[in-house]
This record gives sequence, C-alpha cells and structure tokens, in this order.
Amino acid sequence: MRQRNKPWADDFLKDNPHIIIPNPVENKAKWQSVFGNNNPIHIEIGTGKGQFLVGMAKQFPEINFIGVELAKSIIVTAGQKVIDSKLDNILLLNEDAEKLQEIFAENEIASIYLNFSDPWPKNRHEKRRLTYHTFLEQYKKIMTASGEIIFKTDNRGLFEYSLVSFSKFGMMLEEVNLDLHDHQDPLNVMTEYEEKFSEKGQLIYRCRARFL
Amino acid sequence: MRQRNKPWADDFLKDNPHIIIPNPVENKAKWQSVFGNNNPIHIEIGTGKGQFLVGMAKQFPEINFIGVELAKSIIVTAGQKVIDSKLDNILLLNEDAEKLQEIFAENEIASIYLNFSDPWPKNRHEKRRLTYHTFLEQYKKIMTASGEIIFKTDNRGLFEYSLVSFSKFGMMLEEVNLDLHDHQDPLNVMTEYEEKFSEKGQLIYRCRARFL
Ligand SMILES: C[S@@+](CC[C@H](N)C(=O)[O-])C[C@H]1O[C@@H](n2cnc3c(N)ncnc32)[C@H](O)[C@@H]1O
Ligand SMILES: C[S@@+](CC[C@H](N)C(=O)[O-])C[C@H]1O[C@@H](n2cnc3c(N)ncnc32)[C@H](O)[C@@H]1O
Repeated sequence: MRQRNKPWADDFLKDNPHIIIPNPVENKAKWQSVFGNNNPIHIEIGTGKGQFLVGMAKQFPEINFIGVELAKSIIVTAGQKVIDSKLDNILLLNEDAEKLQEIFAENEIASIYLNFSDPWPKNRHEKRRLTYHTFLEQYKKIMTASGEIIFKTDNRGLFEYSLVSFSKFGMMLEEVNLDLHDHQDPLNVMTEYEEKFSEKGQLIYRCRARFL
Repeated sequence: MRQRNKPWADDFLKDNPHIIIPNPVENKAKWQSVFGNNNPIHIEIGTGKGQFLVGMAKQFPEINFIGVELAKSIIVTAGQKVIDSKLDNILLLNEDAEKLQEIFAENEIASIYLNFSDPWPKNRHEKRRLTYHTFLEQYKKIMTASGEIIFKTDNRGLFEYSLVSFSKFGMMLEEVNLDLHDHQDPLNVMTEYEEKFSEKGQLIYRCRARFL
C-alpha cells in the first residue's frame, strides 16, 4: 500500500486514543477489560483501511476485533471508518506484527486474520512474510488452544508457501479454498484488496489452520 | 475412463504375465527380487494407459516402477506401452488399491504417485477417494519413513479435500503447486489426463506430502 504523507495523521492519533490505542503493551493480558466484556478477541494483522475489520465487527457483535497496522498514514483511514461505524467492538493498534508477544498475553487471542499480506516474493525476504515460522511462533504463543489462523490472498506464491509453512510448523489445515469467489460465501467479508483483485478476475485463495 | 469391452484383454493378460503380474500377493516383500535389483520401488495408483509410468521409468532407470490399475480394459493399453518401451524397470498390477497392504510389505515402497484420481465429488462417496484416510493408512504401512506421496490433479475440489486430508492425518506438506504448467518443470512427466486438461486451459495442481 502506498503511504501518502498525511499531516493530519498525527493529529488524528492524538485525538482518538480510544480507537487507535497508544502504548498497547500496557494493556497486555487486560484487553477484555479494555472492551469491557468477556467476549473472545480476534485480531487482524495488516488491517489496511479497515473495511474487513468493520464488516466483521458488524457481522459478529459478540466478538471483539483488534486491527494491527504498521502504516500510520493507512491506519487513520481505518480509524475514521471505525468512528463512522459507531461500533464499540473494534480497536486499532498502530504497531508492527513483530511486537505481538509484547502486546498480548498467552491465550488472549482466539483467531488471527491475515488478509492479502505483503507477498515478499524474493527468497531473501522470506523472513518478512507474515507466515514465516518466526511469526507462527508468536501467533501460537498468544492464541487459545482451539484458535485458528484464517488467511486470504490472491498471491499464488505466498499461498503455496504458507500452506507448506503451516504444515512444517505442525499446524493442521482445517480448510483450503482455491477459488473463494466461485460460490460466494455469504459470510465472507471482502477486504479492499480482495475487491480490487477479484474484479480483475484474479483467483482468491483462503485457508484456515490451527496449532496442535 | 470409459471401459470399452476388449475381448483381447484376457488374452493379453495370459500372454504377458511378466508385465502384468498375476497373483501379486505372492510377491509380497519380494518385489526387488522380481525386478532383480535393489533399487527403490515407486508405485502409481490408477495408472490408466501408462504414459506417466513409462515416461518416468525412462527418466529414472535406477528406480523400479509398478503401476496399479483396476480396469482390465485400460491396463492392457499400458501393458502394450511397457512392451514397446523395452524398459525392464516397470511392472503392472491389475488390482484394486484397496489391496495394497496384501501386495506390499512394510517399508517396501519409497514413493506413491496419484495422478488425476477419480474425484468422487459427492460427500457420500468420500470413502472412495484415493486420499481418504483409510487409503492413507494403507499407504503409510507400505512406505519407507522418508517416502512421499506425489499427487497431481486438475480437480479443484479433490485437491482442496486432499490437502486437508493429508494434514488431518498428520502428514507434512513438502510442496504445493497451484499452477504446475506456469513455469513448466522440465522433469514433469505428463499423464494422459494432464495433457487433455492442460490443453483445455485447466489449472494443474500438484503437491508432495510425507508421513511423520
Ligand atoms: C497488501 S496490504 C493489505 C491490506 C488489507 N488487509 C486488505 O486486504 O485490503 C498489507 C498491509 O499490511 C501492512 N503490514 C505489512 N507488514 C506489517 C507488519 N509487520 N505489521 C503490521 N502491519 C503490516 C501494510 O502496511 C499494509 O497496509
Ligand atoms: C481419471 S483416470 C486417470 C488415469 C491416469 N492416471 C492419468 O492421469 O491419465 C483414473 C484411473 O484410476 C483407476 N482407478 C480408480 N480407482 C482405482 C482403484 N481403487 N485402484 C486402482 N485403480 C483405480 C481408474 O480405472 C482409472 O484408470
């Protein structure tokens, strides 16, 4: 995603600390109390402009959603969507996925969504892929025993890589879908990238995997 | 594959017991001595007309190949191809995959190829799919510890099903390829079905999985 310079981004962050949480490490092991309920928490990593997260939060009011997005200039757009939605089961974190373990405690997260993660196609960038084993180790540490990773992408290379990476990490595949839009799943919430790529006729892949 | 009535099939079988082995259970644990060497044995299940098996045997003279094909009217075509090839590292069995454990001993098989296996798309026919867990149990029993299953198909549903089935059985995926013909692998030997479907523009999927 291109990061345009958005001078209002810093102001937006300062004005909306209840939406885009500053210093999230302080809430480690306390996220349910931040939401003010005991509902399970699902996180999305690389939330982008937030269409998926807001759509999911609307569809599942009894789940708490947290979006993690590295780019400040992008997360503010998601922040505005959250405000407009008036939903109270969404929070955002302007953080790097590498910090997940500092932000969340063991068993604190029930599901993780990875949507159209950056593919990093070059071998020497393998470590940056969000399905590289170092990331899987982090996800495992913060997830409940029955927790699932739900991964969508149009990128064939990243999807092939990720299926093997999940498998080599000892995870179990619960579902593999090689053409998600063939029979549209009425519960599927499209991301911005998903809309763009499926309009171009690209196949959309999805899988669900869990730790054993 | 449509089975035409081939009156010469019985004659062919009677005349060529060194190619299409009758009573293969008698050779259990003795297949290397049937080949007269100590080379590893790879089997293909549902060999069809034999193009893949003969191509592989030509490419890998230091591997022994056995093709297992249920349909008598089809295996005779494979038999004729084996004779024409003059290769001595191929045998055929006119048997049902359900009998594998009676035919092969533990650790006797190094790799299993499944090519364009019948998809059996209806849920109630799941048990007939060659990647159903009862078949995987059989494969595991006859394979060496490092042995791989190499599976190719154009059938999306069967491929999705099989990835999950391998994973739930505790197998590890070594490779997933969602468009085998995108960058043609020079070592790939095409099957009859593969030629037909790839000419029609169908995607060809491949995966390699092994038991742990
Ligand atoms: C290709 S975009 C996809 C956006 C959105 N998920 C969608 O499907 O439309 C990938 C997003 O992931 C974010 N991202 C990449 N690496 C990240 C990381 N390590 N931690 C948090 N976000 C990251 C990028 O800033 C970008 O917004
Ligand atoms: C769709 S054809 C594919 C043939 C060939 N492998 C190819 O790719 O061109 C499937 C073949 O598997 C055989 N077959 C199906 N079930 C079998 C079983 N249980 N045991 C042995 N062969 C079987 C069928 O007779 C048929 O020839």
